Amino acid sequence: MAHKDSAAVPVKDARIMVIGGASLVGSATVDELLARGAREVVIFDNLSFGGQPNIAHLDGNPKVKVVQGDILKLHQLLAATEGVDGIVHLAAYMTLNFDRDPWGGIDVNVRGVQNVLEACRANKVRKLIFSSSNAVYGYGPGVKGDLVEDTPFHAAGAPPAAILYGASKIMGEQLCRDSFRKHGQDYVVLRYSTVYGERQHYRAANALYIVETHDAIKRGERPKVIGDGSETKHFVYVGDLARANIMALEAPATDVAVNTSGPEPVTTLELVKLVAELSGRPDLQPEHVQPDPTKVRLTSGGAFEIVHKAAKDAIGWEPQVTMREGLRRLLAWRDAATN
Amino acid sequence: MAHKDSAAVPVKDARIMVIGGASLVGSATVDELLARGAREVVIFDNLSFGGQPNIAHLDGNPKVKVVQGDILKLHQLLAATEGVDGIVHLAAYMTLNFDRDPWGGIDVNVRGVQNVLEACRANKVRKLIFSSSNAVYGYGPGVKGDLVEDTPFHAAGAPPAAILYGASKIMGEQLCRDSFRKHGQDYVVLRYSTVYGERQHYRAANALYIVETHDAIKRGERPKVIGDGSETKHFVYVGDLARANIMALEAPATDVAVNTSGPEPVTTLELVKLVAELSGRPDLQPEHVQPDPTKVRLTSGGAFEIVHKAAKDAIGWEPQVTMREGLRRLLAWRDAATN
Repeated sequence: MAHKDSAAVPVKDARIMVIGGASLVGSATVDELLARGAREVVIFDNLSFGGQPNIAHLDGNPKVKVVQGDILKLHQLLAATEGVDGIVHLAAYMTLNFDRDPWGGIDVNVRGVQNVLEACRANKVRKLIFSSSNAVYGYGPGVKGDLVEDTPFHAAGAPPAAILYGASKIMGEQLCRDSFRKHGQDYVVLRYSTVYGERQHYRAANALYIVETHDAIKRGERPKVIGDGSETKHFVYVGDLARANIMALEAPATDVAVNTSGPEPVTTLELVKLVAELSGRPDLQPEHVQPDPTKVRLTSGGAFEIVHKAAKDAIGWEPQVTMREGLRRLLAWRDAATN
Repeated sequence: MAHKDSAAVPVKDARIMVIGGASLVGSATVDELLARGAREVVIFDNLSFGGQPNIAHLDGNPKVKVVQGDILKLHQLLAATEGVDGIVHLAAYMTLNFDRDPWGGIDVNVRGVQNVLEACRANKVRKLIFSSSNAVYGYGPGVKGDLVEDTPFHAAGAPPAAILYGASKIMGEQLCRDSFRKHGQDYVVLRYSTVYGERQHYRAANALYIVETHDAIKRGERPKVIGDGSETKHFVYVGDLARANIMALEAPATDVAVNTSGPEPVTTLELVKLVAELSGRPDLQPEHVQPDPTKVRLTSGGAFEIVHKAAKDAIGWEPQVTMREGLRRLLAWRDAATN
């Protein structure tokens, strides 16, 4: 990690572009940028994942510019990044999409990052915040214990799409490092753990589980737990990530990759009980089932914690929203959206 | 690993394509295929790395067809793979090329593999042998001890280009797995360790060291050893890999990735002394120098052994050529070529 004064991009009065700005984390980041006094926020999004409702509340806001564009089209990125001070790059295929379309995943997650870096270089964008993932530690059974920034990539035993996704994020990170070394491009990589929160989409295998569990409980069904429920997952609340993106822009840090995870991991059993309780049905006991072998499932099969101490050191960030509070907000939003 | 009778592609009387057939391993594989009675060997190569001399001895051989083509052009692959029974896919950027041109590296090593798999699917090519690398275990300081097929990818501490190369090979392997699952495409992945042998090229950082050392000794200079020379490298002789490619085609095995490394690892100091001895100058004592920080250097900094036992189990292969014998052959070739 290097520090230099010039790597700080204060958000106030700045022009910031959020690529994938109509996504779960993107729309929350846009809101936070506006709250911090950004001069203009450019939402660059191909709107292919149905994100329009996530930014509907910004319609008519003079500080928001929506560009429907494709990161695979470099000329669109070049036009959109003129005069931009900083970029938060979120657009990506995740594992389920990689399973359906590996070609598209590699295009978006690797070539897309190359294009964004090229646009940064060409238009002298001062700083790029690249959203990576704890997928860079893999999803194999070897993922155990504390996951810190130099934990290796455990692939063995994971489905092809999960490995492709993780490797694509490893490559995206290294393209940033390469650009820093060759062109001095400032960047911070944030390795998101599994995101959840209001405007929850259906693309992420792990976060989807929360919504499915809640929906089942509301139908009066017992929630399903795969195996004994002792597997841990380590979620992070969407608002905490929006804050992390802004702090990464504003920090003097550059050329660094850090984990951004929630306060603590949770076992699947704890999670399901928490959802049942918050859904007003603590009486519904979880039903233990066997995994469906036809479904892409991401699990370490073990217990791990994604350590976020390095993020505190590098950009001053810590998660603030507990799993209970974040779930309460997600379920309240879900109930409002489905009633 | 799955076994089925149909996954064996006997080479005798078969039509086999070698992509990257004008390379070091490619040309040796072509020779071996012809020796085993292949009906036709198609050399598909863009000839961009100056491989023409490697296949000059095949000029006029009626069983050899040379197609100057580009794996990034799917229509060229589709035309060339018609009626082909099996493919050995070797074309790739290595770390030094990734450093110079990450865009090209990702194209060739990832999109190129997708194109080859698509051509296999479209033209019902029965089996693909994909040359991966021990780079899938990474080049970080964490690479120590026995490297077996489920060793994780140690990236931390390695240069961007080395990580990009390793991740690109991880992705190539997973694209094969994905195609096996979705289309039943039979394949074997061979994870080459550092190749050396006659027709040695200058593209591989580690193997280059042998030739450079030999050249220095012939000029009467003391050979250079970086650090104390205790780092291990684990080479494999080119002829052993040519044999591995044929055995992988002919084995009933499919959907499996195995290491193909030489008989045993060697320390840098042992290697340099061996080269000095074989060059007739055992008196020239190695000079210990500090690493050049401006050069891309691939080293674990530690001691490791790439275990090839799984290759014996899966395809019956073991290395046969010792480091001493392989070096003797390489240096004799080098002397003949430069005299």
